[in-house]
Order: sequence, then structure tokens, then C-alpha cells
Amino acid sequence: MPSSNQFSQRRSVIQRRMATAKLDALLISFGANVRYLTGFTGSNGMVLVRSDRAVFFTDPRYQIQAAREVDCRVQVCGGPLLPHAVSMIQRAKCRRVGFEKSRMSFEGYQYLKEHMPMRASLEPLALWVEEQRMVKSSQEIALIRSSVELNSLAFEQGVARIREGMRESDLAAELDYRMRRGGAEGPAFETIVASGTRTALPHARPTSKVLGPNGLVLVDMGALLAGYASDMTRMLFLGRPPARVRKAYGAVLEAQLAAIDAVRPGATAAAVDGAARRVLAAYGLASAFVHSTGHGLGLEIHEPPRLGKKDKTVLREGMAITIEPGVYAEGFGGIRIEDTVVVTKNGCEVLTPTSKALRTLPR
Amino acid sequence: MPSSNQFSQRRSVIQRRMATAKLDALLISFGANVRYLTGFTGSNGMVLVRSDRAVFFTDPRYQIQAAREVDCRVQVCGGPLLPHAVSMIQRAKCRRVGFEKSRMSFEGYQYLKEHMPMRASLEPLALWVEEQRMVKSSQEIALIRSSVELNSLAFEQGVARIREGMRESDLAAELDYRMRRGGAEGPAFETIVASGTRTALPHARPTSKVLGPNGLVLVDMGALLAGYASDMTRMLFLGRPPARVRKAYGAVLEAQLAAIDAVRPGATAAAVDGAARRVLAAYGLASAFVHSTGHGLGLEIHEPPRLGKKDKTVLREGMAITIEPGVYAEGFGGIRIEDTVVVTKNGCEVLTPTSKALRTLPR
Repeated sequence: MPSSNQFSQRRSVIQRRMATAKLDALLISFGANVRYLTGFTGSNGMVLVRSDRAVFFTDPRYQIQAAREVDCRVQVCGGPLLPHAVSMIQRAKCRRVGFEKSRMSFEGYQYLKEHMPMRASLEPLALWVEEQRMVKSSQEIALIRSSVELNSLAFEQGVARIREGMRESDLAAELDYRMRRGGAEGPAFETIVASGTRTALPHARPTSKVLGPNGLVLVDMGALLAGYASDMTRMLFLGRPPARVRKAYGAVLEAQLAAIDAVRPGATAAAVDGAARRVLAAYGLASAFVHSTGHGLGLEIHEPPRLGKKDKTVLREGMAITIEPGVYAEGFGGIRIEDTVVVTKNGCEVLTPTSKALRTLPR
Repeated sequence: MPSSNQFSQRRSVIQRRMATAKLDALLISFGANVRYLTGFTGSNGMVLVRSDRAVFFTDPRYQIQAAREVDCRVQVCGGPLLPHAVSMIQRAKCRRVGFEKSRMSFEGYQYLKEHMPMRASLEPLALWVEEQRMVKSSQEIALIRSSVELNSLAFEQGVARIREGMRESDLAAELDYRMRRGGAEGPAFETIVASGTRTALPHARPTSKVLGPNGLVLVDMGALLAGYASDMTRMLFLGRPPARVRKAYGAVLEAQLAAIDAVRPGATAAAVDGAARRVLAAYGLASAFVHSTGHGLGLEIHEPPRLGKKDKTVLREGMAITIEPGVYAEGFGGIRIEDTVVVTKNGCEVLTPTSKALRTLPR
């Protein structure tokens, strides 16, 4: 875990940006952002960053935990946290108060507006902390790497236990169990195990459908380790894959490798997406690729940037992203291949150690 | 799962309320509310309820799934969903459009406001669907009961596997695995296994701390089955519990039973909370009870009502709630006992079948 020194360094970056924007207070309530700025791992916290200090608010359930985790002043509050933060804004006579416009509810905004000090203004801000979070420190990359490695190990352990008659949900349970036993807090998202034509659902939930025989299995899984997510998709085939499956798999793999090759500092997210999309178009599969090529990950499983057609984010060294093109056809199935990669000085490093050969299992 | 007939019935209830409030459109974007009104189980959906119809919006990843699950018109959209819903509001020339004020972000509200048809007004609404969701249908209660029973079975299976040297995280992994093998989608929240003095953290995350010897273990777990949550807390003691633990346990159990006795249609949520609080006060433990007595549960693990000091919600037949008083002392530990109960015609039924005797395990 980052030392408490790191949290205050992160707040210093925000405080410099606040100074430039002439803000004397910034209210942060979104969980991953609160954790990033304070170290708090609980579910109910809020932080008021001021030019020279920060105050953390939580409820009595987290009194002991906050005292251990949080390096700035902690205020334990009865009831909702926002009124307590607003009281502090009033007492401090803050003049320009920023808030997270995509995270603050309309209801919260109304309360804020009605309780601002005289002549104070509210400034809606977009993704300040998320932008800072996009570029990971070496410590964060080490945590993501550990999460990726744990996840890949759990995948191997789970796949080794596939037996005839196993249901999608049994394999998902096995994979999650292996993650947990490996030290993860849990899966970073609901593990996807889809088989046969159900692989055509990009976000399929595992069901009681029995795996195979003679069919595709899509496994999309990620672990959460010390708060940091990993994300990987691999395809299995129970039996001998027919030519159509091999061909589609080859096309997706080529697209995935092309996208990885396009990752480097200075490239846009859209350019990486375009690299995958061009390969699939050459195979006549453009319209079968119904999502974007990837996404940032870290304290959240999905965070900026989004590697989609329109995202102009310029990649920078230290960003952690997924590369996961896929093709889907109702009644046939879907194929997706996904790695977690980190942008390096000259390109990227694929963190995921798992082989990308289509894995066939005897049926 | 409820039949599609049920979803349209639920929308009819909302549509009648809309008519009373003279709304010609209502925008619902919060996941559990969308699921309740449409049956959609994916992560990205929005529903626009109009006086005589409803339209469901999602992205291409969910095209196939939405066609299977959703009983009203489905529109598959590129990019964010809100602009598509707003286009429909414009084309239909809606005049009074309601939105969920605690769920809509300030950013979403700004977009809505700027793109409303001429002379149309926006009406912020509080918890309309959540209020409707508070009282469960008999089908929903059956699903919650199944979730509770599955959860209790997983608890027994997990506890039976406790061995010397087992870590908190190992037991949590075991419990989650048993839930999944029992048919759950997964845990309804991050399973809590806390041991020794860590039980004093009401929302402790499992760590690599070894269980016991000679100490308390708190297990707080719930399953998610067909979308419905269960929630239970039980205490274990490895070895022979000292008198102080037995006494505190007895006080919490008495408080929990008193709260259960107070549950009936017509009683307020605050009265149930008061019943537990009075017992603990008599033991000098009032200030050690740092949270509320319980909460509603269903499609969310925490939903209204909140059984706290100030909640004036009047209980009604069909509400599903938890009853979970607890006491916590830093350096000593914490004790909590929790059941899931349903409000019946004359009182309540405790769904949780697991014994509430303090369970001692040989060490």
C-alpha cells in the first residue's frame, strides 16, 4: 500500500490545480477518489480538500478504521456526511467550492447550493481526480501487476478443474475461490463464464448451463488486490474447434496484437481502437465488434481512458489499460481476447502472463 | 423470476402516480430500479416511462440480452444513453418530465435541462421506485427466502471447514465458494470475516489474520440469488468464551429479539430501532451500538427503510428488513447478530433458519 506520505503528495497535486483555478475548497465524495486521496478503504467517506489542509468525514461504523487508515484530520459524523462538510465550508467562509459534477447527485447539489456561505460560488468540475489517477505510480503498477498475476494463476487453477458436467456457474465459483485463496479481496467484477452460443452476450452472467461438449467457453475475470483491479479474457474450446471458430479466433487475436502494437506514449486512445477495428474490418467483422477496444483500470475496474472510436485521450507512460477486441454473432457465439497492459516509455508492457493460444480441452 | 406481466404491472403503478403528479414522462436510470421495472439484469440501462408506454435504452453489448429480458420497446444506442432518451422526450414534446434526484448526477441534470423541449419542466423526484420496491410481492419474498436459505446453508458448510491456522480470508473465500456452488450469483456484498479484536470494526474486510485460538469470529454474509439479497451475521467463538463475551452476547441477543418482537405493520422503523436500543441501554451499552438496527433489502443489499433513530417509515406487510443490533469496543471486540425478516399481517417472520446460540468451536 502507498505510504501516507503518498496520499498527502496526491492531495498536493490537487491543491496546486485548485490554486490555479482559484478554488479554496474541493469536495470529493466518490469512493475510489476518496481512497486515492486519503487511503480510506471503507464504503462511506468524503474529503474536503482546502488550500492548506484536508478533512475526512465518515460515520461511526468506520471510526476505528479511519483512524488507522487516514493520514489527514478525521471527523466522525452522525447521519449523512454532506451537511457536516457544508458546515465546515460555512465556518471557513470558503468562496469558491469545487465539486465532482459527474459524481454529485442533483439532490446533493441542491443541498450544497442552498447552504453555501454568502457570495460563495459552486464550481462543477469534471474528473479532476480521475485524470490524476490515469497515470499510475510505480507502486500502483506493482499492485496492478500482482493483481494480474494472481488472476492468471486463479485462471489456470480453475481451468485445471474443468470436468464433464460442470456448469458455467461452477467454473465461475471455482475461479472466484481460487482468487480469494490466492489473497484477493475478491473478483473485481462478476466473473463471466459463458459457453456455446451464450458467448455472444459480451456481458453474460454465468448460468446453470453445462459446459460443452464441443463448444466455446469465454472466461472474463479480474481480481481485486489491495484495491487494484486486473482484467483478462480467454477462450477455451471443449473438443476440436471447427474451422469457423479457428478463423474468427485468429482474426480477433490479430486485432488484439495490432492494438497492443499501437499502444505508446503520444498515441490517442482512438488510434489504438482504430488499429483493432481495421484488422477486424479486413476480415469483414467490423459490425460484429460491438464495444470499444479497452479501458483504463486501477482502483476501479473501468476508469478513464476509454479506448473507443471517439476518445482523444493521449496515452502517457504509466497508464494501465485493457486491450480486448471481440466479435459476436447471435446463434453462433462470441470471441474476445483481453490483456492488461501498461504504457511504457517506448510502447507498452503486457502484464498478463497467460498464453493467448486458443486453449482446447478434451471433451 | 417475475413474469413479464409483472413488470408491466409495476410500471402501471408508476404510471398512475405519474398521472396524479401530471407527469408525462419519467426517466429512470438507477440499476435496481431499471431492473424492477423492466427485468433487465445488465449494468447499463435506462427506461423512459411515459403515460401509455415505456422505452428501454441500452448499449450494443446488451442487444441480445435486452431482447430476451425486457418486455417493453428496446432501443440500442451508441455512446451514452441519456442523449437518446432526451431525443425521445423532444420528439414526443413531453411537458413535465420527472427524474430521480438522488440518482441523477449534476452533470446529467445539466444535460437534461439544456435539452428539454420548449416550455417543458423538469421535476426532481425522491425515491418513487424505491418506495414501491419496499413492499415485496409474494414472488419476491419467495426469492428472498431462497436467498436466505442458500446463504444459511453456505454458512454451515463454511463453518464446518474451519481448521486450525485458517485465515479470515480463507474462511471468507470458502463461504463465497459455497454460496456460488449453491447457485447464487455471488455474495450480495463483500463477506465480512473478522476475528479477535478486529470484530470491533463493524465493516471489517477479511485479512490474512489467522482465526483464534481463543477468540471471537464475526461472520456477516449474504447471497445474491436471481437478483435478490440475503443478509445474516453470526458469532463464533474458538475455545471457551469468557464471561465478558457471554454477557455481551446475551445483551445483543436480547436486543435483537426485542427488535424482532417490535416488528409489525403500523410500527415505525424508529420504534423497532428503539426497542433494540432500550435493551442495550439497560446493559450500559447504549454508546457501544454505533449503527442503526437494520435496513430494507431486496434488489439492493441496503434499501429503504433504514431502521434508525429518526426513520418514521411505517412498516407494512411484505417489507423485507434486517434486524442486526451490535456492540463494539476497541481493543475488546464486537458482537452483532443479524437476521432477515419479513413483515407479516400480525408481526413478522424470521426467514433466517440458522441458530442464534453463540457457536463455540473446539480450538
